[in-house]
Amino acid sequence: MNKENLYNYILGIADNSLILAQRLGELCGHGPNLETDIALTNISLDLLGQTRSYYQYAASVSGDSKTEDDIAFLRLERDYKNVLLLEQPNTHFGYVIGRQFLFDVYHLLFMQELQKSKDETLVAIANKGIKEVSYHQRFSSDWIKRLGDGTKESHDKIQEAIDALWRFTDELFDLTENDNTMVEAGIAVDVSKLKEKYYKSVAEVLTEATLTIPESKFFTRGGKTGTHTEHMGYLLADLQYMQRTYPDMKW
Amino acid sequence: MNKENLYNYILGIADNSLILAQRLGELCGHGPNLETDIALTNISLDLLGQTRSYYQYAASVSGDSKTEDDIAFLRLERDYKNVLLLEQPNTHFGYVIGRQFLFDVYHLLFMQELQKSKDETLVAIANKGIKEVSYHQRFSSDWIKRLGDGTKESHDKIQEAIDALWRFTDELFDLTENDNTMVEAGIAVDVSKLKEKYYKSVAEVLTEATLTIPESKFFTRGGKTGTHTEHMGYLLADLQYMQRTYPDMKW
Repeated sequence: MNKENLYNYILGIADNSLILAQRLGELCGHGPNLETDIALTNISLDLLGQTRSYYQYAASVSGDSKTEDDIAFLRLERDYKNVLLLEQPNTHFGYVIGRQFLFDVYHLLFMQELQKSKDETLVAIANKGIKEVSYHQRFSSDWIKRLGDGTKESHDKIQEAIDALWRFTDELFDLTENDNTMVEAGIAVDVSKLKEKYYKSVAEVLTEATLTIPESKFFTRGGKTGTHTEHMGYLLADLQYMQRTYPDMKW
Repeated sequence: MNKENLYNYILGIADNSLILAQRLGELCGHGPNLETDIALTNISLDLLGQTRSYYQYAASVSGDSKTEDDIAFLRLERDYKNVLLLEQPNTHFGYVIGRQFLFDVYHLLFMQELQKSKDETLVAIANKGIKEVSYHQRFSSDWIKRLGDGTKESHDKIQEAIDALWRFTDELFDLTENDNTMVEAGIAVDVSKLKEKYYKSVAEVLTEATLTIPESKFFTRGGKTGTHTEHMGYLLADLQYMQRTYPDMKW
């Protein structure tokens, strides 16, 4: 394990939070009602806060003059390591909640394990973030049940979203070569071991929500190694525009 | 009249073509059928061709080392002078056709007058472009009639688009301070004189299409002096991303 391994591992975690935060940020002012609008924006801010902690740590690990802003805004698409699930667009409210739920269940399991890492800084970030993530998971699970067990329209829409997003779930449990090195070093979470628990938790909520658990075994992957879906370029064009247009700007 | 007046006048024309071309380009591969998809993409390319001629001329007028690419890709939002109508999004096919039609009728009248300019280069561009623009106007007028006089759904959707876009039409006939200087110099088209003919032509097509001519007298303006709607920033983020991310790139 060398510095580069650690740097890349941190980005692998942080990019998930950044990209989901960006998607949620797009909704600010567009929620179905004020309470939900504010809740989604708060979740976005929680995730951005975590992102900053990770990127600050990554910048200090890198040893060069990089800042958290450089890492967030000035990489190319192939250098982002987020899972494909999180870059999927806000097609409709069902997709927003479906995406959130399918990530939150994973995220909570992940944070619980990260608390056992040998890396003290990651443990500290996990200790701080886990309360937020528990709340996210309650929020999205509640919405899954409310929509699934609501009207016919809300049921159909959340089912459509879950069906469409399902193919991105398996990637959550992939280990990259770098992940394997970091697991051996006792720092990384062995996410492959979270899989069974994840699908069990997800199934419980979906069942309670009177939703059908997708049976498809077709899965898409690639985000963890930088091969993204067609939505990522547009997301980054928005995300990076300020920094690209006004290089080195300060507030 | 000085060089800067001419430079700004050329941009005022060219930016309309660029921004509409960009909106149409977004649709490439997304048209309702192959023929329409190709037609819209061809219109986009016609407009981009005109844009290039204008920008090349503007670059030569500017006298510094600017290129057409710098002018197209590296200005800030406030420096683009296109009318607000053209930056409006492709909400649905009715909006695409409505926006096109409301611009084409103007564009054709404009090009006819530009052929009488005292500036030979602008006359040459107008002579070359006018056939394209005549075709655009026939294409969009035909679609207005087909949709308006089609099914109830197509009628309602094109009416909705015309109603929503109507408030951007009046800006077409504004003269900026710079325009006035250029009109006096015999170079610019006095667009204020096109207004009556424009609304008459538009009304004829809408009537034939069994559509209602909007009566609203509320108009929005600002694009010609760089004050754009909220859609413009996102459009530019997409448009400029390659140049901003890979500065000075060459194919």
